[in-house]
Amino acid sequence: MGKYIFGVDIGGTTVKLGLFTAEGELLSDWEIKTRTENKGENILPDVAEAIALKMKEENISKDEVLGVGLTAPGPVLKDGTIKGAVNLGWGTFNLSKTLSDLTGLKVESGNDANVAALGELWKGGGMGYSDIMMVTFGTGLGGGLILNGRIHTGANGAAAEIGHIPFCEPEDEPDTCGCGKRGCLEQYTCANGAVHVAKRYLDEHPDEACGLRNISNFTSKDIFDFVKAGDKTACKIAEKIYRNIGRGMAMISAVTDVEAFVFGGGMSKTGQMLIDGVRKYYVNYAFPACRNTDFKLATLGNKAGIYGAAKLIIDSED
Amino acid sequence: MGKYIFGVDIGGTTVKLGLFTAEGELLSDWEIKTRTENKGENILPDVAEAIALKMKEENISKDEVLGVGLTAPGPVLKDGTIKGAVNLGWGTFNLSKTLSDLTGLKVESGNDANVAALGELWKGGGMGYSDIMMVTFGTGLGGGLILNGRIHTGANGAAAEIGHIPFCEPEDEPDTCGCGKRGCLEQYTCANGAVHVAKRYLDEHPDEACGLRNISNFTSKDIFDFVKAGDKTACKIAEKIYRNIGRGMAMISAVTDVEAFVFGGGMSKTGQMLIDGVRKYYVNYAFPACRNTDFKLATLGNKAGIYGAAKLIIDSED
Repeated sequence: MGKYIFGVDIGGTTVKLGLFTAEGELLSDWEIKTRTENKGENILPDVAEAIALKMKEENISKDEVLGVGLTAPGPVLKDGTIKGAVNLGWGTFNLSKTLSDLTGLKVESGNDANVAALGELWKGGGMGYSDIMMVTFGTGLGGGLILNGRIHTGANGAAAEIGHIPFCEPEDEPDTCGCGKRGCLEQYTCANGAVHVAKRYLDEHPDEACGLRNISNFTSKDIFDFVKAGDKTACKIAEKIYRNIGRGMAMISAVTDVEAFVFGGGMSKTGQMLIDGVRKYYVNYAFPACRNTDFKLATLGNKAGIYGAAKLIIDSED
Repeated sequence: MGKYIFGVDIGGTTVKLGLFTAEGELLSDWEIKTRTENKGENILPDVAEAIALKMKEENISKDEVLGVGLTAPGPVLKDGTIKGAVNLGWGTFNLSKTLSDLTGLKVESGNDANVAALGELWKGGGMGYSDIMMVTFGTGLGGGLILNGRIHTGANGAAAEIGHIPFCEPEDEPDTCGCGKRGCLEQYTCANGAVHVAKRYLDEHPDEACGLRNISNFTSKDIFDFVKAGDKTACKIAEKIYRNIGRGMAMISAVTDVEAFVFGGGMSKTGQMLIDGVRKYYVNYAFPACRNTDFKLATLGNKAGIYGAAKLIIDSED
């Protein structure tokens, strides 16, 4: 009785699902396609069907399922209401209640970045801490704030929207961020931001040779590959990016004083190099009492979401 | 039995004390001098004596005291350890345990800015909310972060040190902040910061007439008095200050997404004018989902500390 938990992570392309024991052991994980057509009306029915199918395959009864943890890419309030998810075509509705009605199971929901942070705290790079800021360096800059072991959601489900910290005065930044503002932290730090910083540097220093000049539409990976290869200009660019991230993290610690930052997402694959680069600037920008904040790498990759989703159910049983 | 609580707020000049009912009604409040000589060794014994005296006067037995809530100007960890208090001459020691040994009563401790925030949440400008950032515009810029109705202390007791958010690049700011860094938010926003902004503006615009030019060593109050009197240059300076505060608050809400900011301290006596001025810029800098964050004025004045201290005891009984 009460032996299983489902963790479900809805992304714009695929839905990741995991079957866990009540103790948090991942027994199996699989994916289904995210059908975003017709305002995403099929997504939750597809999830319900995938769960029902797995229960049938594994001969699991409803009584044996503690619940379904669910995460989606949009702001999710404490009561399970999602306030729209642009990538899925969704408007505002109660995510937990809707999937619960479809499955007959208890459902707990959260925002994808927050839930991934919870997963990393539980079983990944944040193990052993109770207060972390997870920072996901993807196309944009995502954040997930865990305090006292629980997700801090915020009044509008918008806590840890650290990519949108007004980092530079708008006057300094001609391009508009996806959120409609200018000067957002993610414009200077994430994969796209890094490319932006690099292009700007190369434009402003036309006399400096750099391997990046030979690659049309270079990516943040290219920048760090050239850094590893010892390209001097790429190294200068990387220092600018590290400085931006270090200053951004110092802004966050002056507000939250977390125990650790956990870095995930594509750009974090540069590993210890990123951490060492960032920390060097962080210690100078941070409030003195916060200079020793730990920096860790995420370890769960794209499974952080299903782990965190499963943990939502475990926490709800407390 | 268990009918009384003491709230004690240790400042650099005076210690404020309050006797409360268990329900949080303030029965009486008084002050004693803070004796900072000899590394502040007399301060806690003086507090213990003041409490014992009041208990004798009011004929209160130890069994009738739920506990003593205590606040001091320094970082206080969750276990009651204060990591130094420069203004009192104190090093690091366990504040709660020390006063508990002196009084034989239960003691709960917290940092003064945090505890004042808790007081405002409980009985002041933050009533009705569970997540607030209290912002104290004093000589410096203080902060107190309350989440889920409780103080968020941080790993080093340095959460809500919002005055030290690295607001501007050091390059923009020749003067050093009290913390040793440059470009801290408080250098652009608090009473001293406002004067600094004004002086800089006046230096950079020597041709603009302004009443402030006739006052040597003008204060932030003078700036806002001239604003109220319609001095055009003072108004421009105030807009710069409002913009700085608005942008700083937007940084905080992108991390915490609090329900409300509660403004206290000397500069907040300008009241609704300050809130209206700040909000105008806040809505442009804030992440769109957080644009409707409430702005409130603190109402407890210098009694916020003793109220919050009393609440520490009430919360510890849960």
